[in-house]
Amino acid sequence: MAFMIRSAFMKSRTVLPGLCVMRTMSSGGPTPPYTTLSISQPSSSVTYVELHRPEKRNAMNKAFWREMVECFTQIAEDPECRVVVVSGAGKAFTAGIDLMDMASEVLQPAEGDMARNAWNMRRIITKYQETFSVIEKCPKPVVVAVHGACVGGGVDLITACDIRLCTQDAWFQVKEVDIGLAADVGTLQRLPKVIGSRSLVNELALTARKMYADEAKDSGLVSRVFPDKEAMMAGALEMAREIAGRSPVAVQGTKVNLIYSRDHSVAEGLDYMATWNMSMLQTEDVMKSAVASMEKKNPKTITFSKL
Amino acid sequence: MAFMIRSAFMKSRTVLPGLCVMRTMSSGGPTPPYTTLSISQPSSSVTYVELHRPEKRNAMNKAFWREMVECFTQIAEDPECRVVVVSGAGKAFTAGIDLMDMASEVLQPAEGDMARNAWNMRRIITKYQETFSVIEKCPKPVVVAVHGACVGGGVDLITACDIRLCTQDAWFQVKEVDIGLAADVGTLQRLPKVIGSRSLVNELALTARKMYADEAKDSGLVSRVFPDKEAMMAGALEMAREIAGRSPVAVQGTKVNLIYSRDHSVAEGLDYMATWNMSMLQTEDVMKSAVASMEKKNPKTITFSKL
Amino acid sequence: MAFMIRSAFMKSRTVLPGLCVMRTMSSGGPTPPYTTLSISQPSSSVTYVELHRPEKRNAMNKAFWREMVECFTQIAEDPECRVVVVSGAGKAFTAGIDLMDMASEVLQPAEGDMARNAWNMRRIITKYQETFSVIEKCPKPVVVAVHGACVGGGVDLITACDIRLCTQDAWFQVKEVDIGLAADVGTLQRLPKVIGSRSLVNELALTARKMYADEAKDSGLVSRVFPDKEAMMAGALEMAREIAGRSPVAVQGTKVNLIYSRDHSVAEGLDYMATWNMSMLQTEDVMKSAVASMEKKNPKTITFSKL
Amino acid sequence: MAFMIRSAFMKSRTVLPGLCVMRTMSSGGPTPPYTTLSISQPSSSVTYVELHRPEKRNAMNKAFWREMVECFTQIAEDPECRVVVVSGAGKAFTAGIDLMDMASEVLQPAEGDMARNAWNMRRIITKYQETFSVIEKCPKPVVVAVHGACVGGGVDLITACDIRLCTQDAWFQVKEVDIGLAADVGTLQRLPKVIGSRSLVNELALTARKMYADEAKDSGLVSRVFPDKEAMMAGALEMAREIAGRSPVAVQGTKVNLIYSRDHSVAEGLDYMATWNMSMLQTEDVMKSAVASMEKKNPKTITFSKL
Amino acid sequence: MAFMIRSAFMKSRTVLPGLCVMRTMSSGGPTPPYTTLSISQPSSSVTYVELHRPEKRNAMNKAFWREMVECFTQIAEDPECRVVVVSGAGKAFTAGIDLMDMASEVLQPAEGDMARNAWNMRRIITKYQETFSVIEKCPKPVVVAVHGACVGGGVDLITACDIRLCTQDAWFQVKEVDIGLAADVGTLQRLPKVIGSRSLVNELALTARKMYADEAKDSGLVSRVFPDKEAMMAGALEMAREIAGRSPVAVQGTKVNLIYSRDHSVAEGLDYMATWNMSMLQTEDVMKSAVASMEKKNPKTITFSKL
Amino acid sequence: MAFMIRSAFMKSRTVLPGLCVMRTMSSGGPTPPYTTLSISQPSSSVTYVELHRPEKRNAMNKAFWREMVECFTQIAEDPECRVVVVSGAGKAFTAGIDLMDMASEVLQPAEGDMARNAWNMRRIITKYQETFSVIEKCPKPVVVAVHGACVGGGVDLITACDIRLCTQDAWFQVKEVDIGLAADVGTLQRLPKVIGSRSLVNELALTARKMYADEAKDSGLVSRVFPDKEAMMAGALEMAREIAGRSPVAVQGTKVNLIYSRDHSVAEGLDYMATWNMSMLQTEDVMKSAVASMEKKNPKTITFSKL
Repeated sequence: MAFMIRSAFMKSRTVLPGLCVMRTMSSGGPTPPYTTLSISQPSSSVTYVELHRPEKRNAMNKAFWREMVECFTQIAEDPECRVVVVSGAGKAFTAGIDLMDMASEVLQPAEGDMARNAWNMRRIITKYQETFSVIEKCPKPVVVAVHGACVGGGVDLITACDIRLCTQDAWFQVKEVDIGLAADVGTLQRLPKVIGSRSLVNELALTARKMYADEAKDSGLVSRVFPDKEAMMAGALEMAREIAGRSPVAVQGTKVNLIYSRDHSVAEGLDYMATWNMSMLQTEDVMKSAVASMEKKNPKTITFSKL
Repeated sequence: MAFMIRSAFMKSRTVLPGLCVMRTMSSGGPTPPYTTLSISQPSSSVTYVELHRPEKRNAMNKAFWREMVECFTQIAEDPECRVVVVSGAGKAFTAGIDLMDMASEVLQPAEGDMARNAWNMRRIITKYQETFSVIEKCPKPVVVAVHGACVGGGVDLITACDIRLCTQDAWFQVKEVDIGLAADVGTLQRLPKVIGSRSLVNELALTARKMYADEAKDSGLVSRVFPDKEAMMAGALEMAREIAGRSPVAVQGTKVNLIYSRDHSVAEGLDYMATWNMSMLQTEDVMKSAVASMEKKNPKTITFSKL
Repeated sequence: MAFMIRSAFMKSRTVLPGLCVMRTMSSGGPTPPYTTLSISQPSSSVTYVELHRPEKRNAMNKAFWREMVECFTQIAEDPECRVVVVSGAGKAFTAGIDLMDMASEVLQPAEGDMARNAWNMRRIITKYQETFSVIEKCPKPVVVAVHGACVGGGVDLITACDIRLCTQDAWFQVKEVDIGLAADVGTLQRLPKVIGSRSLVNELALTARKMYADEAKDSGLVSRVFPDKEAMMAGALEMAREIAGRSPVAVQGTKVNLIYSRDHSVAEGLDYMATWNMSMLQTEDVMKSAVASMEKKNPKTITFSKL
Repeated sequence: MAFMIRSAFMKSRTVLPGLCVMRTMSSGGPTPPYTTLSISQPSSSVTYVELHRPEKRNAMNKAFWREMVECFTQIAEDPECRVVVVSGAGKAFTAGIDLMDMASEVLQPAEGDMARNAWNMRRIITKYQETFSVIEKCPKPVVVAVHGACVGGGVDLITACDIRLCTQDAWFQVKEVDIGLAADVGTLQRLPKVIGSRSLVNELALTARKMYADEAKDSGLVSRVFPDKEAMMAGALEMAREIAGRSPVAVQGTKVNLIYSRDHSVAEGLDYMATWNMSMLQTEDVMKSAVASMEKKNPKTITFSKL
Repeated sequence: MAFMIRSAFMKSRTVLPGLCVMRTMSSGGPTPPYTTLSISQPSSSVTYVELHRPEKRNAMNKAFWREMVECFTQIAEDPECRVVVVSGAGKAFTAGIDLMDMASEVLQPAEGDMARNAWNMRRIITKYQETFSVIEKCPKPVVVAVHGACVGGGVDLITACDIRLCTQDAWFQVKEVDIGLAADVGTLQRLPKVIGSRSLVNELALTARKMYADEAKDSGLVSRVFPDKEAMMAGALEMAREIAGRSPVAVQGTKVNLIYSRDHSVAEGLDYMATWNMSMLQTEDVMKSAVASMEKKNPKTITFSKL
Repeated sequence: MAFMIRSAFMKSRTVLPGLCVMRTMSSGGPTPPYTTLSISQPSSSVTYVELHRPEKRNAMNKAFWREMVECFTQIAEDPECRVVVVSGAGKAFTAGIDLMDMASEVLQPAEGDMARNAWNMRRIITKYQETFSVIEKCPKPVVVAVHGACVGGGVDLITACDIRLCTQDAWFQVKEVDIGLAADVGTLQRLPKVIGSRSLVNELALTARKMYADEAKDSGLVSRVFPDKEAMMAGALEMAREIAGRSPVAVQGTKVNLIYSRDHSVAEGLDYMATWNMSMLQTEDVMKSAVASMEKKNPKTITFSKL
């Protein structure tokens, strides 16, 4: 599969840079062997993952849950990739879980031994949780750009990303209580650590009301709002290029330690950081960057080896 | 006592719905056997708890600390209740601890063995901490609506609630340093996990300055501000009805897991969530809700069994 | 050394109070034996620490890292001091690490055994982390006032302080990725626990972009913005006086417990708090403060013993 | 109820001391209002709790689970009590849960909504867990003396005690897998922290095999083995007297901190300990004990105030 | 691959039961597609995994590290398997890592950028750690039977198993310091939680001295010692049959919760246990087992459904 | 001071090796500037620290608490030292705290404000805790050899060491309850993590009874018992030489990670280990050791660079 995706990258490399690329990319449909994702490389060291079932508003069907794991496992290993941009094709980011397609897994008949059903259910939930946890385990930063609806599973997805952007017409909905369940693939765990207002988190999760772009910006869910999708994708790509231009040792070490710190005390985070950097500071990238810095050169002019 | 409160619910059930009820409720005085709390049921499955010592600005006397525990212990067990609204009667939400009434407990004479006094003091503090922790242990969501002053113990109380609303004239004050002590019944533990700005938390706790409604909204302490108390109570009741109309399995599981996640790493939260939902997803509520969702019906039209 | 600093306090005590003092203070240069810090006492019980290498934009050289530890270790022990104000002399708060001066430590030649280099590097990082952790271990609240640039190590420094203020012209930059490394003396550990928006934290740390005063205020990094440095220093001093006027038992106990709570669950924080206050509530300060409160006197009129 | 038990203490106080008392005690039957426990005071400051359903081999019925909570809650508050001894009347320590009596609670019909049954089951388990956790929350040391069978719930009980003794004919059995369930009221949580060999813990829990006194001693489950029950009760009482003769501030502080340390890192345990002792070291008991120590007097000759 | 292994099970099912099977099994060589492991089913619901490179004293080569993950991942999913027995073919359990075969991975040339080498090394270590963590993640109990040498990686392996048995001639050696490294695939993390004497753990890990069977038994590393391999394999199989005969819901829930408890406080372990059993207690296995228990039947006579 | 101690090493280097040295060492008295410790180097890379107030049975006076910190801080930094042996001069290891000398610190008059006394007491306790924590923070393994009495503070000391040995006439006593206090400088935190039997730990701490060598060995407190002091010192030195002869990168990394693992879950310990070894495995020591291992040479024949 590695070969196929790499060749998909090759194709997109030949087209025009920047915005044009972005517009072109989504026209093509899913990148085989994927059926729900389109993968391309709009810029050097930047991988672009587009949710691509526009006719279903990118609803998450069985294939999607599996393909996300495959896709991000491969991205994590791909030395060409230093940063990822995620967005959705068509009119909305995602309508969330595709209930029709998933019903057979989630809505099980109340037959057989209850404990055995529970055992099986736990395995399924754990597997689905992994779909978004892979984003976090991937050491490359992931920028997610949301337009239109971002519902249910969509919120689980974006809270596992590192940087969130949206358009003025975007809206977010923690939908799960409306279908009779507590959100179980990440929203309840990550949203409170992503937003500053716990009252708002609780309100969203308990009432399933929509939150629009301005409130998303004020609350810190997204760090930037753009007037429309074109502007947002240009902004996302520009941000991705900024990140891709810096030392991958520095950038990916930063992501790994930011996530570690979220889940530990400050003292534990500092200890881990010192242990991490005892080797990482010995990289040639520091010397290269320090020299460039003293010479007042832009870090993006430096060539860093692959990681 | 169960009978008495249930009959209090019965009475309030016969009055007119919505706003009128709310206005009516507070006229009555405390609900026996309580002397500081008025309990009613303004709407199906909604329990309304009003701090009711208006002549003392709802200052927290000895009776209050005990009655809160009894009240929320009972609410936690009451299958009729799916959501709670808390507010204060009279001109202010609460003036905080009633120093006159509490002095005998808190201001002990410096006699006898110091260690034995300390031992006793620790037992008292632990007991008072429980007064607000019961709100958190109660699996039903608690919406608190603040108008006017919310001082000292009032901040301890509201940070243990799930959703915070206030009026334009509300103000908040972490008052404890002004009376020579570090706040010890919850504010220092919960406020930093409720507000996004640690600098602000520290400023409030170290200077005892007042914070007004706008800053409370900007900082995320409250998620909505209303022009006056009437509008706020209508808003709180509407929000409570939204929550009460959804599956109690989903709603209460959401609260339990949101609180668990606050105190654990994301990985631990996900593991607990999967173990929780291995049974809870087998509820009939999911099927009922999923069917309603596919038929585009409002979740509130579904009848869910008691929990 | 204690004598020298105390006599520095004596000198500053004789000058005029308030704003004038503040302006005077920075004129003097570093306070011996320090070469990068100026220490004074602008007001009773308030210690003022000024980064003082204005000709180098207060860049952090080898001396600075050592002197901060000495300075705050002494402040922690000084019974005269109840609150600390930190700011920078000259045109900027700080330009961050002084790469020229520090290069010999950080940019080691790739010689010798890799593991032994790593071992040595870990010791250095741990030592530098301590430079800012001493601020946190000092039980006296630290108010930091930022104007102009606050770059790299400057962000590490201010996130270890308790209250952050800035001027309208201040800007902040997590600069480390630009010099090829993951920030390792505190920013990645503390910034996410100081700001409400994780998306913003990640964006700042991964792109090294500047953040200006308004965004710093909106995101909660600072709790107040002032039009210029003079106004800010007046505000900082006023805030310091408010804090210094309250019971040091209450104030310092509040700081200790706020930091404990950040790194523990709510239940653990409450247990520690009860164990803390079983002795601290037996202070005479509570009685003094309670009496003043009932008599409607300002807490600042009370005389509290040294701690 | 306090009065009744106190008067039970009074009665036993008048009989002869030591061994005779012990033999006498168990003849009497349960102490009203308890139906499964016999409470007495064989020696000054020593409370003796005997499981007392000998005709049912002290099997744990519904009353037992409730009475243990009441009994230990009261002991925790009783200033007369400084140490507790627990043993079983009749031929065995305990046969474990009384399946006949408990079946209605544990063996629920598979009717109604699965999630609601689960919700109810979780409440029941949590309540039963509390039955043994109260032993741990009680700050007075609890010495348990086991003879004959100690099965199922009996292992849950003894692992929550502080010191375990047994007779040569004692045997222990983690019985739960034999009735189709994972032990859920404490054994799986506490046994591995009580015994040094994890391989043995796993073997016992997974095979439900019996462990006899010698292996119990070798593995560290018990710290002493006695030839028969009479010798063991004399030994237990002697040990209880040793503990009761020491400063209750020292003894109970030791228990609280030993349990805290089990569940925290060494650094956290030390911090808690320092915060605990900042008041407790100010007790008069230290001076009394230090003087006695310098004078080579036995600590038991000192009179300590009640705690 | 599932098919191949299942058919391997089929073959071994037809041979004679018990000891004979055990002796037969090891004669066959590795089970394709494995090259270092022999898999069979000596008894109903029991899977037997034999390290099978006897000519190399079962030294762990590259293939082994990969095959263990595949093997235990499959066992975890295999509903036919309820318990696993692991032992080594030939003269010794294992000589540990096969340095000759692994050198290319572990002994990297000191070329290229140090940080990039470190990044790569961390990925390799993490992958190798997973080789033994799969044993722990597999919910079926794993009994390991050691004879002769158990060196280096062998200790990492057995500490990840649940029950450890050995022969009188077995010896154990934490060998890593002898080859210049700190053991990094589990021994330093698990051995201290498996043995009761920390002094012994440190001595073994710091001096690389051998520990023989008697000391292994006294220290609790193994829970039983057998005179020779034949007796041990018979004992291991008997123990496996005991476990396999009980409810898999009970047995596997017990393993999951024992491991959870090791890594959490008692309070957290109890909470998780209650959440686990709120569904698992609703299994039909409890009723079946309770009835058999009341009828004094052996649990092994009950037929439990697959899990 | 570094010079003085180094020259002390020089002197001892010239005397005869092994046992003779050991006997010689203790004759000398304290090594200036120390007054309670004698420091020497009996063997290459081995530092020997002897408690040296034999006329007071090595009771811990004010000087001792300070000198231990200085001594181990220096040892931690000394590249010549790879392992430490600790024992006591004269008739006993240590009689514990020197109550006469320490009384002024510990037995404070009950004057002044209680909270301020508590604040001061907490600072003192924290400082004393550090006296033994430095042993743990020192990355070189510490072997402690106990003969005769090891009382009170002595138990705090030895539980912070890595390997414990004793003579047949040694005895141990957790003495603190006898002087009216809960042990607060480490015993209650470390003893339960050092011994396998929690019942025994509790018994020792609550009754202050003596434990003799055999029970110390059975319980795992010590890992070896020797007939007399001469044999023990020879054994300790032999063990120290074994450790000193191995790669310091391997040995000290092992100690650091063993202590980290004690205070973290297995998963966290593995993560830290992988991050640690990503640099440490790149040491030349692995290659040197691997080559020696393949050539069947003793690791002690290899020359490792200083760390």
